[in-house]
Amino acid sequence: MENLLVFQSDFGIADGAVSAMYGVAYSVNRNLTICDITHEIPQYNIWEASYRLIQTVKYWPRGSVFVSVVDPGVGSTRRSVAVKTSQGQYIITPDNGTLTHIKRMSKIIEAREIDEKSNRLPNSGESHTFHGRDIYAYVGARLASGIIEFQDIGKEVDPSSIIELNVTEATKENDIITGTIDIMDVRFGSLWTNISRELFNELGIGYGDRVEIAILNDTREVYRNIIKYGKSFADVHIGEPLIYVNSLDHMAVAINQGSFSKAYNIHTGSNWIITIRKAPKIIYE
Amino acid sequence: MENLLVFQSDFGIADGAVSAMYGVAYSVNRNLTICDITHEIPQYNIWEASYRLIQTVKYWPRGSVFVSVVDPGVGSTRRSVAVKTSQGQYIITPDNGTLTHIKRMSKIIEAREIDEKSNRLPNSGESHTFHGRDIYAYVGARLASGIIEFQDIGKEVDPSSIIELNVTEATKENDIITGTIDIMDVRFGSLWTNISRELFNELGIGYGDRVEIAILNDTREVYRNIIKYGKSFADVHIGEPLIYVNSLDHMAVAINQGSFSKAYNIHTGSNWIITIRKAPKIIYE
Amino acid sequence: MENLLVFQSDFGIADGAVSAMYGVAYSVNRNLTICDITHEIPQYNIWEASYRLIQTVKYWPRGSVFVSVVDPGVGSTRRSVAVKTSQGQYIITPDNGTLTHIKRMSKIIEAREIDEKSNRLPNSGESHTFHGRDIYAYVGARLASGIIEFQDIGKEVDPSSIIELNVTEATKENDIITGTIDIMDVRFGSLWTNISRELFNELGIGYGDRVEIAILNDTREVYRNIIKYGKSFADVHIGEPLIYVNSLDHMAVAINQGSFSKAYNIHTGSNWIITIRKAPKIIYE
Repeated sequence: MENLLVFQSDFGIADGAVSAMYGVAYSVNRNLTICDITHEIPQYNIWEASYRLIQTVKYWPRGSVFVSVVDPGVGSTRRSVAVKTSQGQYIITPDNGTLTHIKRMSKIIEAREIDEKSNRLPNSGESHTFHGRDIYAYVGARLASGIIEFQDIGKEVDPSSIIELNVTEATKENDIITGTIDIMDVRFGSLWTNISRELFNELGIGYGDRVEIAILNDTREVYRNIIKYGKSFADVHIGEPLIYVNSLDHMAVAINQGSFSKAYNIHTGSNWIITIRKAPKIIYE
Repeated sequence: MENLLVFQSDFGIADGAVSAMYGVAYSVNRNLTICDITHEIPQYNIWEASYRLIQTVKYWPRGSVFVSVVDPGVGSTRRSVAVKTSQGQYIITPDNGTLTHIKRMSKIIEAREIDEKSNRLPNSGESHTFHGRDIYAYVGARLASGIIEFQDIGKEVDPSSIIELNVTEATKENDIITGTIDIMDVRFGSLWTNISRELFNELGIGYGDRVEIAILNDTREVYRNIIKYGKSFADVHIGEPLIYVNSLDHMAVAINQGSFSKAYNIHTGSNWIITIRKAPKIIYE
Repeated sequence: MENLLVFQSDFGIADGAVSAMYGVAYSVNRNLTICDITHEIPQYNIWEASYRLIQTVKYWPRGSVFVSVVDPGVGSTRRSVAVKTSQGQYIITPDNGTLTHIKRMSKIIEAREIDEKSNRLPNSGESHTFHGRDIYAYVGARLASGIIEFQDIGKEVDPSSIIELNVTEATKENDIITGTIDIMDVRFGSLWTNISRELFNELGIGYGDRVEIAILNDTREVYRNIIKYGKSFADVHIGEPLIYVNSLDHMAVAINQGSFSKAYNIHTGSNWIITIRKAPKIIYE
């Protein structure tokens, strides 16, 4: 049976780009099952493409083939690669940092550079701007279908050569954890940090305890408050902020039924810094 | 053969949440066919989730399994339930009012409370904020696949105990019908009322006749006009308002190729009241 | 095996309309594979519906059945038709201009008018506003499933009778090509013209050469500049404009990693005119 083929891109779904990719893949093999991660990655945002992969691929079956096309360098000399992860999944993408989180957190056990001559949609040679359709979807469909094997994709390259974006690690010093706002829960405006539950647990904070949070944009403080550590949103009132463990096992900050991002105009990236410490005990006399 | 699995949520499709649900379901059973109602339910809007179910489920085959996750109470003590309708379809959802219209209009013949211990994605116990992925998608996929039967979901509960949101009924008095603007045809800005075609027909109005409409926001009148009762948009000029029977057999108000909602800044909910009566005959002398 | 069924509309995916179409089709045949071109065609924009068809259908397998519903005339006397293209694909749509580009560029070899009495979802006779669900999805599903043959759809009509929107052809005079901005690459704001690569090549311009572009809104000039003819975006700096061959083999204008449309507030349609000529050689002394 065919393996699943899963697309991601920054193309949006308002024009025909994604549909052309589906058509190419079904033309390779009518029996494929094709799905999406999302096509709403902000344009050219390789960081978010990388993050959405690590957020989702682990929930998909072994053997699934992911095709991620956020490709500001299309037509340049950037490589196209296919990698095999330690979970037995495949990811096909321009080698531009899209594999940053997968390489760090899920491990790449084999990598191949796509030979764009032998692995290209027939008669697509004149178009140089849509490798998502002409190369990635085509190769992904052939791999998911078993028409080609992983080694047929192209010559092996060292997994360590796969390009990584700069990643900031959360640190703990004097009972204060410092991290960054990595990404957002788009619809709900919750801020997802790079602080793992394990690191947070070193502060000795339990559910229901109060935590002092500060958020800085570079050096400018944009938020400071003492908020509750909740198991889930239901542990605080509607409209109340909380810190919680998100669905990726990292610490996140939200407002119950509100948008933390919109409330304080907070965005994502390495210049959005968050510090966390146990709140001082307040004794009312 | 597997039954269809159909998702609905307020997650949007811009991040990886829906994709993680798909991945979980395909990991249960690679052969499933998975579809969507929509993931654009406005955040936390249980009323609209309920309405979109009654609007769509009847067009799907018997045996289809619907998973609806609009879940502001995730992590609270709200129940998770699965119900079987009189049409032989299944709906899995937090019991928070999402089943309001199904319960009233399609009838629930059996209800079960999900046992979240035996019916939970393995190794998902530490996350408390994404039951859509860890419980609902997982249970839905197992039910649609026939891995579990309906009774394996959990203990039976009384269908009458399923939570209902407050529903306002349209009424007729002295040849005036009073109803509410229940929901919108999102893309086209048509207003869908809670007034059934049957009730409207009691006014003795035929296609082409003129109808007097008033719309109030609480007690403030925001629209009053005499408009045509059309079979479809083509019965009026472009830009002309009309009243018609919508695709759910209820009365709706629209502007041909315009947006009634945007034109008069009219929204939905029980405080948006519409009255309808046969227009007085105008005799030009 | 069933043929693929592919939907397009201006319904958006925020309410239940598209889902009802899917449900109807799966109720016809549970084994269908159903996909989308897009449901984000701007409301009532038949031109864009026509363009998205020509942009995508050629990438889909022979035998695929496309259902396109941009239908401002629903309920009027406009015909519903099904056509067979020279590539052996089928398109079902209101006959309102949606087939303009297919008729001109891909050729229609057979056309039939849908008999809405024999080809209509059972018990849907009272609704007059949603032919997408009650007629087009239903007929498309039956055709893709082989339940009906193409000739069962209705009586044959002359392909030349299929309605075409007005199309402006690009022209070349005195080494200046004049065309129009046909459509946009929605997410990236690139402008796609009606000027083919063949016509452009008559100017004798090679990759890396500089080209003088002017864009007019009716008679008002909104842009004039000398820009590079690039093989792809990577041939210019980030933020630099270029002219290139798009994925449909037509000339397009873009800003590398920016939006040409937003930068100069340029839109699409026959009143947006673009002229192209080889840039005069500049000799720095």
